[in-house]
Amino acid sequence: MANKERIVEDIETLRRITQPCACGTQRPSYTPEYRRGVEYVKRRMAEFGLQTREDNAGNLYGLLAGTQPGEPKLISGSHLDSVKCSGAYDGIAGVLCALEAARMVVESGVPLRRSLEVMGTIGEEGTRFGQALIGSQLVEGSWGEAELDRFHGLEDGLSLRDTMRAYGLPGSTEGVCRRGEAVRAFIELHDEQGPVLENEGIAIGVVENIVAISWMHVTVHGLASHPGTIPMSMRRDACVGACELICAVTNYAREHYDGEATVTAGRLDVFPGNTNCIPSRCDFTLDIRTCSGAYRDDLVRFIREKKADVERACRVEIEVREGMRQASTALDAGVQQCIEDACKKLGYTWRRMNSGAGHDAMIFSRIWPTGMVFVPSRGGLTHHPDEFVSPEALAQGADVLYETFRALDA
Amino acid sequence: MANKERIVEDIETLRRITQPCACGTQRPSYTPEYRRGVEYVKRRMAEFGLQTREDNAGNLYGLLAGTQPGEPKLISGSHLDSVKCSGAYDGIAGVLCALEAARMVVESGVPLRRSLEVMGTIGEEGTRFGQALIGSQLVEGSWGEAELDRFHGLEDGLSLRDTMRAYGLPGSTEGVCRRGEAVRAFIELHDEQGPVLENEGIAIGVVENIVAISWMHVTVHGLASHPGTIPMSMRRDACVGACELICAVTNYAREHYDGEATVTAGRLDVFPGNTNCIPSRCDFTLDIRTCSGAYRDDLVRFIREKKADVERACRVEIEVREGMRQASTALDAGVQQCIEDACKKLGYTWRRMNSGAGHDAMIFSRIWPTGMVFVPSRGGLTHHPDEFVSPEALAQGADVLYETFRALDA
Repeated sequence: MANKERIVEDIETLRRITQPCACGTQRPSYTPEYRRGVEYVKRRMAEFGLQTREDNAGNLYGLLAGTQPGEPKLISGSHLDSVKCSGAYDGIAGVLCALEAARMVVESGVPLRRSLEVMGTIGEEGTRFGQALIGSQLVEGSWGEAELDRFHGLEDGLSLRDTMRAYGLPGSTEGVCRRGEAVRAFIELHDEQGPVLENEGIAIGVVENIVAISWMHVTVHGLASHPGTIPMSMRRDACVGACELICAVTNYAREHYDGEATVTAGRLDVFPGNTNCIPSRCDFTLDIRTCSGAYRDDLVRFIREKKADVERACRVEIEVREGMRQASTALDAGVQQCIEDACKKLGYTWRRMNSGAGHDAMIFSRIWPTGMVFVPSRGGLTHHPDEFVSPEALAQGADVLYETFRALDA
Repeated sequence: MANKERIVEDIETLRRITQPCACGTQRPSYTPEYRRGVEYVKRRMAEFGLQTREDNAGNLYGLLAGTQPGEPKLISGSHLDSVKCSGAYDGIAGVLCALEAARMVVESGVPLRRSLEVMGTIGEEGTRFGQALIGSQLVEGSWGEAELDRFHGLEDGLSLRDTMRAYGLPGSTEGVCRRGEAVRAFIELHDEQGPVLENEGIAIGVVENIVAISWMHVTVHGLASHPGTIPMSMRRDACVGACELICAVTNYAREHYDGEATVTAGRLDVFPGNTNCIPSRCDFTLDIRTCSGAYRDDLVRFIREKKADVERACRVEIEVREGMRQASTALDAGVQQCIEDACKKLGYTWRRMNSGAGHDAMIFSRIWPTGMVFVPSRGGLTHHPDEFVSPEALAQGADVLYETFRALDA
């Protein structure tokens, strides 16, 4: 079984390798602190005989050679970078649990037939470039040389290529793409970043899909006027129109698609924004996430239907424009089955679930059979200094990875 | 009967006396354009034998001497200043209709027993100093020398005293306050700034009360999180909490107090305000206006009751803090009766109503028997270039003032 003290030691060591920050820990990609984090993980890999290498993108690999190294490989890991003022688990836990599972293989005395690569990707968070999933997209091949010059640091303005060079890499994508390679499976462990597993007291989430994301931009047009002279029934209050639509659509999503779809109004601006003026305009966004095209279509239908109701009831006009639209990703059914079988064998509770957040697994699933393992995160907190995954949950996650590797090695 | 062409000529002349502005017309207090507007009104007063004077605050008076000038006077008027990018009626119409009624007295050949003063106040709008009702409060006596040094121009930083001096006044309040004086009545005509008279096809509003105003500052505390990983039923979404409370209270006000009380959420800020983040905090204001203490208390009770419901349903915490609280003003019953009798005599439709906006009448009612006459404004538009009062409505308003003066002169 997994050694939870060893995982926690790695987690806490990496937590302390941080840029100075107001709270939590932060290790953005291509920084001296990121380098120190990579060097620590490399040392830990090497201690157990893994051969370490970095590709030109800065992705870290630790290879545990199998007895039949020509067979399609197993790859497992997540990202080593973090958002600002982060917790210590997002991404990191997936690399360290994969490393622990590799250590378990070594300590078992029974080597794998297939080679196993523990992977730590770079640039998964959008922290430095406003672009996420950098390392994985270079490996998968959607990104190439052009992107190294296309994206620039949000703070320093440096191109991705110059940033890589300043970090000590050659500034090229040569050898990074693994699109042609035969890989048996990629498995990413991640903390759930939501409260479902904790609330239901379940140890392991077996991810079936990563959600589709739609962004809607809504503008409500009313009529500005004096707040005391227009009776309530005669108003054209843009803020009230927006509130009615937001309440209606979030309530509808909760009643019909709880746990299956989310709708979030994250940005909202009221004009002119005076205490003593009926608002003339309200702009807001709706972030819609679901793995089901039918649910999404029904939510969009409901928004348009309710828009017409609110226009009539509140005497306003509402524009709904579609912004970003990103398809959902179905993970590999065979890999899911292996993860589930591992849970059964270990006697751990599990449930099938979807991921509401994007992950490197979403990218790798385009080229490799891909699965994801979720472990509970306390209160679902993420991108927050108080993010917490218990040592027991981390150990159970590593156990599941180990058993899944064994099943996929058969 | 009133000469509508004459009133419209005055309105349109003053509309053209404006600072350069993006749209509409604007004549803020103590500016060269304000001076030009005052000089035009003075000339029009003098043409019909009114003796003009300005007090040290810049308020304009035109006196039509009565046959018994020792009797308590009649005073009628409104303000001559405007907001930025204004229409041509707010305030101005009240001065010009009072002037028209005075001209009707002169032309009738039957002088009033009491002297009649047509008044144009200064600084009623908060445009230059962020402080409204300057001229009327200096006349009423709530304000005095101290306020001349206490308030400063929002744009130029000049004190009110220095602003008065730059305008050509001595920079003193000497002789401005009329608190001790015996006055029979003050009557202010104003456009309604709301849609009630127009919608009901009624010519004249007889104002009973000027509303009380309460400002509530509300903060909803939720928990920021990823928009895809927290099921709808587990969220603590501050924006949804705010929307639920705003919908509940505005719907309650519409259902129970339509035409009697208003609730307006004019300012609303969502934090952190990212499309892909469940909001952690939402601040908004509620402007509550009603003449009834009981309605206000019930609205505040409802807000607190609903706050608890929303806290439970949305898993948020809500702070409600009381900001400004200004009492309502009951206008003089005898003056109201005279206005109503005038409408009956003239065969004009009328209704009793409250004013949802503050006016100089609110201030003068502290020292003089005070009434207000509303005339319909198209669509209730106000503080807007498209504000419009028909020539017929202005003439009917002047007729009502004339008949009311006659009744009060008896």
